[in-house]
Amino acid sequence: MIRKKMLIDEREKKYLIDKKLDRFGNDLGLVDLKEKKEGVVLKSHKGHEFYLVEPTIYDIVKKMKRTVTTLLPKDIGLIITYLGVREGETVVEAGTGSGALTIYLANAVGKTGKVITYEKRPEFAKVARKNLEIVGLVRKNQKIIGLDEEDEDENLEEEDGLYNVIQKIGDVTKGIEEKDVDAIVLDMPDPWNVVPHAKKALNKARGRIATYVPYIEQAKKTVEALKEHGFFDIHTYECLVREIEISEKGVRPSTRMVGHTGYITIARVKPEDEE
Amino acid sequence: MIRKKMLIDEREKKYLIDKKLDRFGNDLGLVDLKEKKEGVVLKSHKGHEFYLVEPTIYDIVKKMKRTVTTLLPKDIGLIITYLGVREGETVVEAGTGSGALTIYLANAVGKTGKVITYEKRPEFAKVARKNLEIVGLVRKNQKIIGLDEEDEDENLEEEDGLYNVIQKIGDVTKGIEEKDVDAIVLDMPDPWNVVPHAKKALNKARGRIATYVPYIEQAKKTVEALKEHGFFDIHTYECLVREIEISEKGVRPSTRMVGHTGYITIARVKPEDEE
Amino acid sequence: MIRKKMLIDEREKKYLIDKKLDRFGNDLGLVDLKEKKEGVVLKSHKGHEFYLVEPTIYDIVKKMKRTVTTLLPKDIGLIITYLGVREGETVVEAGTGSGALTIYLANAVGKTGKVITYEKRPEFAKVARKNLEIVGLVRKNQKIIGLDEEDEDENLEEEDGLYNVIQKIGDVTKGIEEKDVDAIVLDMPDPWNVVPHAKKALNKARGRIATYVPYIEQAKKTVEALKEHGFFDIHTYECLVREIEISEKGVRPSTRMVGHTGYITIARVKPEDEE
Amino acid sequence: MIRKKMLIDEREKKYLIDKKLDRFGNDLGLVDLKEKKEGVVLKSHKGHEFYLVEPTIYDIVKKMKRTVTTLLPKDIGLIITYLGVREGETVVEAGTGSGALTIYLANAVGKTGKVITYEKRPEFAKVARKNLEIVGLVRKNQKIIGLDEEDEDENLEEEDGLYNVIQKIGDVTKGIEEKDVDAIVLDMPDPWNVVPHAKKALNKARGRIATYVPYIEQAKKTVEALKEHGFFDIHTYECLVREIEISEKGVRPSTRMVGHTGYITIARVKPEDEE
Repeated sequence: MIRKKMLIDEREKKYLIDKKLDRFGNDLGLVDLKEKKEGVVLKSHKGHEFYLVEPTIYDIVKKMKRTVTTLLPKDIGLIITYLGVREGETVVEAGTGSGALTIYLANAVGKTGKVITYEKRPEFAKVARKNLEIVGLVRKNQKIIGLDEEDEDENLEEEDGLYNVIQKIGDVTKGIEEKDVDAIVLDMPDPWNVVPHAKKALNKARGRIATYVPYIEQAKKTVEALKEHGFFDIHTYECLVREIEISEKGVRPSTRMVGHTGYITIARVKPEDEE
Repeated sequence: MIRKKMLIDEREKKYLIDKKLDRFGNDLGLVDLKEKKEGVVLKSHKGHEFYLVEPTIYDIVKKMKRTVTTLLPKDIGLIITYLGVREGETVVEAGTGSGALTIYLANAVGKTGKVITYEKRPEFAKVARKNLEIVGLVRKNQKIIGLDEEDEDENLEEEDGLYNVIQKIGDVTKGIEEKDVDAIVLDMPDPWNVVPHAKKALNKARGRIATYVPYIEQAKKTVEALKEHGFFDIHTYECLVREIEISEKGVRPSTRMVGHTGYITIARVKPEDEE
Repeated sequence: MIRKKMLIDEREKKYLIDKKLDRFGNDLGLVDLKEKKEGVVLKSHKGHEFYLVEPTIYDIVKKMKRTVTTLLPKDIGLIITYLGVREGETVVEAGTGSGALTIYLANAVGKTGKVITYEKRPEFAKVARKNLEIVGLVRKNQKIIGLDEEDEDENLEEEDGLYNVIQKIGDVTKGIEEKDVDAIVLDMPDPWNVVPHAKKALNKARGRIATYVPYIEQAKKTVEALKEHGFFDIHTYECLVREIEISEKGVRPSTRMVGHTGYITIARVKPEDEE
Repeated sequence: MIRKKMLIDEREKKYLIDKKLDRFGNDLGLVDLKEKKEGVVLKSHKGHEFYLVEPTIYDIVKKMKRTVTTLLPKDIGLIITYLGVREGETVVEAGTGSGALTIYLANAVGKTGKVITYEKRPEFAKVARKNLEIVGLVRKNQKIIGLDEEDEDENLEEEDGLYNVIQKIGDVTKGIEEKDVDAIVLDMPDPWNVVPHAKKALNKARGRIATYVPYIEQAKKTVEALKEHGFFDIHTYECLVREIEISEKGVRPSTRMVGHTGYITIARVKPEDEE
């Protein structure tokens, strides 16, 4: 369930719009959306084609409201596949940010799993809640644990969603409340301050951690903290994606590319009790 | 549920072993596994430490039996995040190969979703079945549709698994039996021959396709077929992952890296019926 | 000898200016250049520092007038080192373009070597002449062979320069006039049409060729032509340069980078006469 | 002048051999080299073809005797083009290592330029001398300044060479003897210890420096030392080269590539005297 629909115009520009929106216009003209279902071509009054489709979570993540720089799907993909996050797992995430990683993690652990996401800045958590509502991960006006204020009812109709995300206001450098967690994912500037708490929160047989930081010094401090606090199988990566342009003129990588986002460190809890 | 346990020795060498195995030995000595549960440290008779843990699906994919070169997790991560595969979706995959992509796709669509995976070579499908059994995606001796022979009972105990994968013997260049599919992922040498069938099989409102090929000419032919057969929002990527070595000596990327695996093309079905 | 001086302001913005210029101004103020020699700090009337230096050929290439996209120094460096261009060699180049590659090639072959550079568009050759004059590679008003018109005297004072470049108007797909050439470098859209002529022009004991093209299809056609026309030891490369930002905040690669410029193919003439 | 000849066999394997060698053999058979000149095809007694050619400095650098890991041509190309090293310049280099960078630098500054190369380990300097002799950069038995022992005459015939390299035994962290140097290139583990000496040795109007180090911490310390000691226009790079395989099967980058060699920092002396 995604509470948005998407229009793509002839130039492949994308517009994420409210499901109830009846009319849309840009420089290619106005289109009438009344009673139109996703999966059809629409003509604007200027004669241009618009395609009405269902957005994917990739579309949502690319278009959603952001409070901070969010993890790119390339890095999210690496984190989830290298951690081996799977159906049924319990994952703790911090900080929530705009919720991009939360959306992918929630879908990775699925109906039988759970994502607990911490954010210390209430105003960010509230923006993230809106993003998570769009993709059916939190119920309408679901409480953000630790956030005092009441939220106004927005008359979201309850639909069939995953609803496996719990939002919390909290600073994980002070501690993680969960126990027996399968994986922890940290997108924050000082993950090394969370490492001792992560050690306690993770299941000893299968607990893994991933951290994402832009600077190499941060990656180094994280790796050192992981070694010191009983983690092993520690690896740090960077992921570069190049788009390849395939046209009648020929094939070539794009002239411009993203040269860097961040360093991803993956590690595993080291069992400690000898038997 | 994963039907294996994993030993990691002091040098971080990993051994995927049968859950029932009672004893393990390598050059660091013999370890007694009897009645040991994952999450403990074991000492070998030579005094070296071994860590008994639960393997992740990443560990399984890295260690499992292979019939062909399998997609690497870096490329699987990009395919799943860029396609936006999510809980509850129905995905068709071809060819099954060793099942690495199948494992990640099955976890992405989860308990309420389904992966139908085609493989035209029966002997490959049978190896893949063993790999999928290990991670609880097919039931013991689950029939591979289109495969005549009976399989012997292996006394696998039925455990709680995802069981959301259907294996088929079949050549998708001849057609795809499913309808209303959310996404199709093709890891095969001639995806362009599948494109017309993919168009018919995919849901018009949200159908997406991803293809993976090692040669640039294959990517080009695929893109041309996609354009010709009513796909749009077509993008081709390559994904490069560099490991960063962080040690007391300092930080530097590894000297050797994988320079190329394949080109990934992502596209969306173009709605055709005007309303 | 370089007929320009360079000012670098406090923000490290660079200005290539005429040697005779007495005064310079930008938003940081006016600086008096009268009788100032390179190697000093100057203060603008607003109190900002400007550094007066001699530009390098790298500075010239980055700042000079361009008629077309020119080869970047990263690619020029790879061409020269992989070809092994050295002091005393005779190199043929086409097309001249703005002269960036010519400048580096001329310095690589040095005082005892020679660069013959072909350009089929007279207006481009004339812009390149100005660029080559700046760095002392062609004499003032040196004739461009094949160009009819007379050039006006510009009162360039003759200084000590390398003067080892010969400019020609000509289309090398029709033939190369030189014989016994050590190396040929082609920066043009259809190098395969030059390959048979290159074969004849190159010295059989040490002749090498390099080509630079943006599209992979062009690289492929070039490699095929090279194989067909008696070249061997054929290799194609791409070169990616990432800038690393080192600041108080930490170390990280730049967010944006050039993702692609072109493919460089290097090959060697295959001796043919059996003895 | 290069005091070697090169044989390339049918599989494109290369053999750098003495100019006086009369006979060569490998598993493809024996070839008679007596009175054969470079530029011919030779048949082995087993009927296989061998191509006799003149090696380039690239071939020499790839095949020469090494004492340490040497700079790769890709990095040398970036250093020379970004520094803008040109005909006639005086360049100081440390350490000499095997001489690979020396060879390219000497050809870059040419007949009217000069390379002074420091090496603190006499045994390395002697290996480098042999390599430099091969390409005509030092005269036969040319003294290595600071090295006591006499070298035996090797009866090298004097030929026409560049002879623009001066070898010295010395530790540049203790000081650089030269003054008014155009560029300094440091391939050593602690370039920051040389920075204050480099500042004094370089010409104030055009002095540049380049350093090459494998670890990021080294690059950082170098940049900090450069800032502290009056350098500016400081940039750090890494250079990645991918080989592209073009065959009948299709086009694709090579599976394996060099993922990292080192970080290159380029800077310029900041003029200090106000006038």
